[in-house]
Amino acid sequence: MTLILGIDPGSRITGYGVVRDNGRSCEYIASGCIRTGSGELSARLKAVFCGVSEVIRLHGPVTMGIEQVFMARNADSALKLGQARGAAIVAAAEQGLEIAEYTATQVKQAIAGTGGADKQQVQMMVMHLLKLTQKPQIDASDALAIALCHAHHRQSLIPHGLAGAKRRGGRLRL
Amino acid sequence: MTLILGIDPGSRITGYGVVRDNGRSCEYIASGCIRTGSGELSARLKAVFCGVSEVIRLHGPVTMGIEQVFMARNADSALKLGQARGAAIVAAAEQGLEIAEYTATQVKQAIAGTGGADKQQVQMMVMHLLKLTQKPQIDASDALAIALCHAHHRQSLIPHGLAGAKRRGGRLRL
Repeated sequence: MTLILGIDPGSRITGYGVVRDNGRSCEYIASGCIRTGSGELSARLKAVFCGVSEVIRLHGPVTMGIEQVFMARNADSALKLGQARGAAIVAAAEQGLEIAEYTATQVKQAIAGTGGADKQQVQMMVMHLLKLTQKPQIDASDALAIALCHAHHRQSLIPHGLAGAKRRGGRLRL
Repeated sequence: MTLILGIDPGSRITGYGVVRDNGRSCEYIASGCIRTGSGELSARLKAVFCGVSEVIRLHGPVTMGIEQVFMARNADSALKLGQARGAAIVAAAEQGLEIAEYTATQVKQAIAGTGGADKQQVQMMVMHLLKLTQKPQIDASDALAIALCHAHHRQSLIPHGLAGAKRRGGRLRL
């Protein structure tokens, strides 16, 4: 049983999701959004750092998945995203979490079975896999998808026969 | 008398410089480079965060200047720079430092009297202003230049007659 944190960093909103990986299935623990407000850069980055630190203190995840960014729209948005990403990663590293990065395609593949899935399909699959009755906010849903992808990849490292989740075509089936 | 930290963040090397602003002049306190090594991203960002935190604990600056980035070479380098910048800013914000950003042109203008000065000219002026007998490493020198620029701009906010440094054409004269 492992508590897993998923983080979807952004310069305005950072989504987070916590799931419990029971080996055979993943269970929803918490999710939400850290809003950085419209203050100075240092205050906004501190909000990301403190928000992620607080989620870790509150729920105690031991490992974190975060989306790997390959293609930012432009240098300016890449810089802003990088700053938020740096603040989130440092918060987790400071508290000793193991950190793994996944591409958007890996996340979609693990959750929806295809790297070409759209945001709505991923959101529906997150709800289905975690048995959610309400639709989470999109940034929280993306963070939960990353946490589930991380659970999937961690399970695939467990020797054959020990991992409970069944997989077909790279998709996590719980 | 105010202790001022200057930070020149980078994905591989983050330069730092600490100066004491005595009102009439600035005095060299410390400078150096935080090398992030070639490990995983989280370890490299943690090195920036811990390195900046350690410099603050050791020397006790109350305010920090950092270069504002407008034009990164491309989205990939902007993302990497942003991550290091986020880690450095969060370290300072966490310890309650006031943070100011300056463009490269503002730094050059304050140190060398012209926004078109090259790196070597800035380095020579940093040595001259801080009465250094040895050439600091280029990242440390850039960080000291940012600290001096921050001192210059802070002094210009002090009511006329109280600031000791004489200025001509936007250049800091000590």
